[in-house]
Amino acid sequence: MPIRIAESVLAGAESGAAEIDGWLDALRSRRTMQVRQVGLDELDGWSTDQDTGVIRHDSGKFFTIEGLEVHVPGAPVPRWSQPIISQPEVGILGFLVKQFDGVLHCLIQGKTEPGNYHGLQICPTVQATRSNYTMVHGGKAVPYLEYFQDAPPHRVIADVRQSEQGAWFRRKRNRNMIVEVTGEVQLLDGFRWVTLGQLHRLLHAEDLVNMDARTVLSCMPFAGPGLAGALPAGRDEFHDALLASCSDDRGSLYSVGDILSWVTEARSHTDIFTREVPLKHLPGWRKTDGRISHESGRYFDIMGVAVRSGTREVGSWAQPLIAPVGTGLVAFLVARIHGVLHALVHTRAEPGYVDVVELAPTVQCTPGNYTVLPPAARPRFIDAVLDAPPERIHFDTILSEEGGRFYHARNRYMIVETDPDAAFDHPDFRWMTLHQMVGLLRHSHYLNVQARSLVACLHSVTGVRPAADRAGRP
Amino acid sequence: MPIRIAESVLAGAESGAAEIDGWLDALRSRRTMQVRQVGLDELDGWSTDQDTGVIRHDSGKFFTIEGLEVHVPGAPVPRWSQPIISQPEVGILGFLVKQFDGVLHCLIQGKTEPGNYHGLQICPTVQATRSNYTMVHGGKAVPYLEYFQDAPPHRVIADVRQSEQGAWFRRKRNRNMIVEVTGEVQLLDGFRWVTLGQLHRLLHAEDLVNMDARTVLSCMPFAGPGLAGALPAGRDEFHDALLASCSDDRGSLYSVGDILSWVTEARSHTDIFTREVPLKHLPGWRKTDGRISHESGRYFDIMGVAVRSGTREVGSWAQPLIAPVGTGLVAFLVARIHGVLHALVHTRAEPGYVDVVELAPTVQCTPGNYTVLPPAARPRFIDAVLDAPPERIHFDTILSEEGGRFYHARNRYMIVETDPDAAFDHPDFRWMTLHQMVGLLRHSHYLNVQARSLVACLHSVTGVRPAADRAGRP
Repeated sequence: MPIRIAESVLAGAESGAAEIDGWLDALRSRRTMQVRQVGLDELDGWSTDQDTGVIRHDSGKFFTIEGLEVHVPGAPVPRWSQPIISQPEVGILGFLVKQFDGVLHCLIQGKTEPGNYHGLQICPTVQATRSNYTMVHGGKAVPYLEYFQDAPPHRVIADVRQSEQGAWFRRKRNRNMIVEVTGEVQLLDGFRWVTLGQLHRLLHAEDLVNMDARTVLSCMPFAGPGLAGALPAGRDEFHDALLASCSDDRGSLYSVGDILSWVTEARSHTDIFTREVPLKHLPGWRKTDGRISHESGRYFDIMGVAVRSGTREVGSWAQPLIAPVGTGLVAFLVARIHGVLHALVHTRAEPGYVDVVELAPTVQCTPGNYTVLPPAARPRFIDAVLDAPPERIHFDTILSEEGGRFYHARNRYMIVETDPDAAFDHPDFRWMTLHQMVGLLRHSHYLNVQARSLVACLHSVTGVRPAADRAGRP
Repeated sequence: MPIRIAESVLAGAESGAAEIDGWLDALRSRRTMQVRQVGLDELDGWSTDQDTGVIRHDSGKFFTIEGLEVHVPGAPVPRWSQPIISQPEVGILGFLVKQFDGVLHCLIQGKTEPGNYHGLQICPTVQATRSNYTMVHGGKAVPYLEYFQDAPPHRVIADVRQSEQGAWFRRKRNRNMIVEVTGEVQLLDGFRWVTLGQLHRLLHAEDLVNMDARTVLSCMPFAGPGLAGALPAGRDEFHDALLASCSDDRGSLYSVGDILSWVTEARSHTDIFTREVPLKHLPGWRKTDGRISHESGRYFDIMGVAVRSGTREVGSWAQPLIAPVGTGLVAFLVARIHGVLHALVHTRAEPGYVDVVELAPTVQCTPGNYTVLPPAARPRFIDAVLDAPPERIHFDTILSEEGGRFYHARNRYMIVETDPDAAFDHPDFRWMTLHQMVGLLRHSHYLNVQARSLVACLHSVTGVRPAADRAGRP
């Protein structure tokens, strides 16, 4: 499998671009979605509980917006309250893959979600909540779902539940699946087979490859014997160190046992207490003009939209969305250690995590929020990311978070090289190789969704292309 | 490490027995503990909440007894209510290991807990709740704790949080640690260094090696290249298949990827809903004579004890305990598949699990409870365990569960060989090798505490001894 992945990474990266861009443009011209902002009290099919203020769908399904009280003893901000999305169901995010002319291809989908910043984005083959695929909405069936629901006799390449934003979702997990088929697959309108190389090129475009596609891509077994050897080395020292990072025979600063013990220590000693509280009269938050906002104007709003679409399972619907204030920053500092690229990973607690802390990017924040937060809350190592010279920035693209729950939620994703000096020694941070992260991605709740996106971004840099190619929309 | 483990397994299994037994007898004669049953309303330092009936310690620490309502749609018993222990803190269960004359030894402790059936049991070096080791009780410090709290510069061999009984504990996790030291270690009264071989012999005695010791032992990296080769083969086909099961180069019926996908599937599709409810007036339960019992007389009671001890951190205390009704049965069916021993593992949901289901023994039940439960609730494959001819029973010993929370909680642990025929094909069951289970034990929440005990029992059978030796108290 690793060698087949390497071959797919190299295939088509430089070719087929115009054709794919044409396909996307054609979809964009047809896939119009009308999204109109409406007040939370005017959402068809949704109601607000009189006593608690909880917002829920009349079917009792999909998701609810609730209030949460958080207490993190000893933290710079030890207590706060916030709205949060509760969606206990496990949905499916899945890529179907298939070999064409000896090369592995992924079945991508062009889809528009109401919260998308740039309209159409690239999604995995299937992206469905359980309410969605059990057709609570009374709409059409989800295409290709049968390959994931009855995966055998197909080959399951990855199958793991992963968390999503723990600041916005309470205990949300989606099942990330990659399933290989060998038989004939009907190609439906809006879908297309692409190589990993082609998908990696698209990942460098702003707001194009969506969060769901990125998290599934990160679960590719993109490591192991033969993978690095099958990718072309010798371009520069950074790239060679990146390839070495895909192989466990090239060593690592810490053993997997060390890393697991460090995670155990963090999870044993971090206290984060959460409690459901009424959304109505949530301290620090107010409802005005049909939106719920923080009194500082920061963090996020809860807003409502009414949607009309000609090409979805349901033609029109309304729903609440989380609308973050400001663009976020999500970055890995990476360093060459004994010729092997390591990323500086952070044990981060978020109120919605199932298991206390997860491994997060070096920096993950919304810089604008720090205007209203105490100085001690300012993220560590943010200056090393923002002050890096251009030649040490290996990935720098604004990507969107899930447009089905978030409105114009965008983060600047960066991979920034640094020197592995003592300034980065901190008990909450550790240097890890890419193959160590990929190994942990076989299991739930180790890497958070932002770190998984960056793993997909790191993978996308393995196929050699000059740095000048790597910016801009394809 | 695997080879050092193998050497320790072989060392002293047949020697030193009389000396260890003498040491245990001497401890027993000195370590008297007076345990007196008292009503739940007469527990010094504990009180019952007037409104909810919740039983808590006046410090707010240690643990509470709460009410839980459980809903498992589609199960033979889809709804019930029960008392449950809530102990959100992560404690430490740790073995200190050290090489003597080239052989790895574990530091065991002889300790009496108020719920123990046979008085003194063998515990790991450290067995401490967080309230315990932060000295909420105002007592003495926990010996050897410093090796686990500041593990580096010592070598951490295992460090993973594992769940405990999900039927009795809500979201309980303990940190299971094995730490190797090289320097001088002061040997305190009540402690003793033993080889794995000696510990394995003790594991075959009734109610002697406690649950905490067993779960930590199961987390030994008891697999890997060289381990099987270092253990003597050729005794019989069962034993050779057991040794083959310790090595990943001998193959397995399912790949690790298959197993992980199966766990993901079970966790994605099993619904188990729990809700805290008042312990007072819990449906089906009543409080009489200072105990809380089920109206059927089955399952378990909540009882109180007053304890006096001369050798503990605190000289006297009172506490509630769970007292199960009847002895349980915990068994692995094992089979030779292509010459490699596989155990039949079950995806089991329990209300207290953090993550929906865990991998459990083939059979885990309290047979007496089925007199009051619907026939469909009777455990699958129980007859294959109970009807097995003696020559196919490779382990059969009654072992105790944790005596600090449970009163006379005993299970008959069995390893029973069978043929791997189609009768065992069921979506909730899979054949797994020992090295696959040991691999998953590096991570939290895969194997439940009963399965972990059986893994330790399977390990104990690797050192060759005639079957006749394997029964009875040492």
